[in-house]
Amino acid sequence: MSACGLKQIIVTNPASVFYLTGVWCEPFERMLALLVKGDGRLTLYGNRLFALEGQTDVPLALYDDTDDPVALLAADVDAGPIGIDKTWPSHFTIRLMQARKDVTPVLGSQPVDDARLIKDAEELALMRVSSQMNVEVCRRIGEALHEGCTEKEIQALYNQIALELGASGPAFTPLICFGTSGAEPHHDSDGTRLKMGDTVIMDVGLIWKRYCSDMTRTVHFGPVSGEQKKVHDLVTAANRAGIAACKPGVKLKDIDRAARKVIEDAGYGPYFNHRTGHGIGLNEHEFPDVSAVSEVVATPGMIFSVEPGIYLPGKFGVRVEDLVAITEDGCEVLTW
Amino acid sequence: MSACGLKQIIVTNPASVFYLTGVWCEPFERMLALLVKGDGRLTLYGNRLFALEGQTDVPLALYDDTDDPVALLAADVDAGPIGIDKTWPSHFTIRLMQARKDVTPVLGSQPVDDARLIKDAEELALMRVSSQMNVEVCRRIGEALHEGCTEKEIQALYNQIALELGASGPAFTPLICFGTSGAEPHHDSDGTRLKMGDTVIMDVGLIWKRYCSDMTRTVHFGPVSGEQKKVHDLVTAANRAGIAACKPGVKLKDIDRAARKVIEDAGYGPYFNHRTGHGIGLNEHEFPDVSAVSEVVATPGMIFSVEPGIYLPGKFGVRVEDLVAITEDGCEVLTW
Repeated sequence: MSACGLKQIIVTNPASVFYLTGVWCEPFERMLALLVKGDGRLTLYGNRLFALEGQTDVPLALYDDTDDPVALLAADVDAGPIGIDKTWPSHFTIRLMQARKDVTPVLGSQPVDDARLIKDAEELALMRVSSQMNVEVCRRIGEALHEGCTEKEIQALYNQIALELGASGPAFTPLICFGTSGAEPHHDSDGTRLKMGDTVIMDVGLIWKRYCSDMTRTVHFGPVSGEQKKVHDLVTAANRAGIAACKPGVKLKDIDRAARKVIEDAGYGPYFNHRTGHGIGLNEHEFPDVSAVSEVVATPGMIFSVEPGIYLPGKFGVRVEDLVAITEDGCEVLTW
Repeated sequence: MSACGLKQIIVTNPASVFYLTGVWCEPFERMLALLVKGDGRLTLYGNRLFALEGQTDVPLALYDDTDDPVALLAADVDAGPIGIDKTWPSHFTIRLMQARKDVTPVLGSQPVDDARLIKDAEELALMRVSSQMNVEVCRRIGEALHEGCTEKEIQALYNQIALELGASGPAFTPLICFGTSGAEPHHDSDGTRLKMGDTVIMDVGLIWKRYCSDMTRTVHFGPVSGEQKKVHDLVTAANRAGIAACKPGVKLKDIDRAARKVIEDAGYGPYFNHRTGHGIGLNEHEFPDVSAVSEVVATPGMIFSVEPGIYLPGKFGVRVEDLVAITEDGCEVLTW
């Protein structure tokens, strides 16, 4: 906090609250907030429905559905700048500003993001298991692909097998795309049926003891055209070039560059229209981005995705995604 | 907007953006924002990845992953107050404030919430189908309960049957609670196994053509104790009293009161520790609350839940939830 020039922050991301207090609580529209002061004092604000008592040593400030939780919090903050967690719904921030005109909200997630960025040995072990379970579930849904099955069915099958293997559930809605669906990076799986010649994207992840996995495999159902093979080989080469660049001291923008260059050099640059990757851990997407503008330097303990793709509108898409953990001298790929 | 004293608002809830533009887009951590000016001008800001082109007549302002979308938006807003949608992640609001110190963010969801509050005939028809499908899926998972099954299995079964019947998916993670789990209103379904004598809470909902359903049924597996029967009868009576109070002109706090009074009069008041209900439509929880402090007046076209409950720590819980649509002279229960 002092490195960020902050004397008080409000932490509200459930994963960050868990990281700091050991309490996991999804508040939905209700308020959950951990106030952290520069001197180390903590207070956790939550609805009595969350049953927080006994779950943590952090002092609690509890409210009921008919109380105003922002008033409770506003009474405890100090005048001056206050760091606000990035995803806190704006109405809380605005109501806090209205209740305390002497307080200025500023971006406040960096201290906790910086802490969560470097995974310790225990977290790394959980991330390994989460990824290896994901590899297995992904393999099984790949084997279950058959002519006429729908994207939704394969999606449901992923969720079912993940639960059977002991995962808490999917880390995000599995993204299963057949044929032209794969050319839309944000396609929602639907009733599209698999047919011979389709390229299939499976972008899937699960949660193991709160830690998320995420990987993408692209396969071809039936005969493979020259263009499908060429694009797939190219994306695989970009993924491998990105992974090869993953070592301590390298900026994440240079990892993005390494992967992107392979695709650009082959003339497909405009069809790789997203960042190369993102951090992952207690959340499926977390700080930092692996993008053309990321100045973050790879450091042992960081875990992020390397997921280049090429999307040819009206034809098909290919994405190859792995998770890497930065080590002392390179990286460990968690999804191989 | 003029009734709320607002000359510009930023709408960001995906359901509200859909309601106003016909575009459904889940932006995850990227920025999706609809700027609405008092003179009716609209601009929709989105990442090129969202593929918004051709989906709406609203003018688009598009950005890439390496652009700063807040700068794009900041250039278009006017000095003075600007209404901010309640759930917009705070970092966007804070960055907008930093880019435009002449702009003051204020709460800004009310105009769209007020519009979405009153469902038209087409929306009501979709809400009816969504609820009746939910009734059927809930009936089937009730029949599937058997000794030794786990909460997670029944949860997965709900999702599977909902998809089979044609729903887009669950409206929220189905909440399946066996025995003492039901005494925690925020219990996450886990590996708990069903045993004779357990009270079972099934709080479930699905999405049909974007519209959400939500209902809760409580059943008893095997022999029913005198206390289980008494508490269940009481909660049912509270649910019926709440529903009986649902007619145009009644304040929602009086509907809360009608349900709560039944439970309080029987001495169980402290064990009914949440609001009586919530609005529902394109979101599973939307404006308004049915709580002790809601001054909203029931009006034809409103749809909300009536869901009293009693939770006896260490023993069991009972909740009975129905959705009602306010009509000209009373209400229609969508979940019967």
